[in-house]
Amino acid sequence: MKATLDHIGIAVADVNASLSFFRDALGLDVDPPEDVAGQRVRVTFLPAGQSSVELLEATADDSPVGRFLAKHGAGLHHVAFRVDDISAALAELKARGVRLIDDAPREGAHGALVAFIHPSATHGVLVELKQAHAVR
Amino acid sequence: MKATLDHIGIAVADVNASLSFFRDALGLDVDPPEDVAGQRVRVTFLPAGQSSVELLEATADDSPVGRFLAKHGAGLHHVAFRVDDISAALAELKARGVRLIDDAPREGAHGALVAFIHPSATHGVLVELKQAHAVR
Repeated sequence: MKATLDHIGIAVADVNASLSFFRDALGLDVDPPEDVAGQRVRVTFLPAGQSSVELLEATADDSPVGRFLAKHGAGLHHVAFRVDDISAALAELKARGVRLIDDAPREGAHGALVAFIHPSATHGVLVELKQAHAVR
Repeated sequence: MKATLDHIGIAVADVNASLSFFRDALGLDVDPPEDVAGQRVRVTFLPAGQSSVELLEATADDSPVGRFLAKHGAGLHHVAFRVDDISAALAELKARGVRLIDDAPREGAHGALVAFIHPSATHGVLVELKQAHAVR
């Protein structure tokens, strides 16, 4: 596996309010938001070079990001690495005994395939693997 | 200001133990560690494309990273953005009323100039600005 840093996910209570910092002060561009229905989250990517900031806004209080916000408040939520072949990457991690949240890839934003690794296997960091486009 | 994502800082209890995930499972390269005396931290960069993972190991329990580990355990600590001119960037943030931890740049790892923005101004995220090399 050869991973590159794809994005850093930040949970925020209100994306529009957070743009005064990330867009206006840091000068980042803002892509159109997208709802990821399966995770009940609205995501907004802000490209920052070859990696991006992903702002995460819960669309339901009992969604994963909604529960994170209730427990921790806004802040760093996960880090995502891009891989060429997410199925091969998951198989390799399983063979190493790395604890996964998602045994199989599922659909993320922008038609990507994503899977999360359990923080107990990653020194407390919620790590997402991402394959940019599904192989059809 | 035009910021690009430079690295994501992850606090760990033991860098060597964490390499079984970040180096061996994710396949990241590992740069030689460097002690940043002013912050009493040992940093190890793992390039992951144009952005890096920075593993942070406290060299004193009452250092900033030592206190973070005692309070939160290992996990995502900060996100760093690269800017061309950190002094101009800090002046711009000050003019916007953004609360800073460092009013002036100080020396970070690899001879870079760095400054931290207060999480109260960034939706709970500890944000570092970094100018790769000091202008001599």
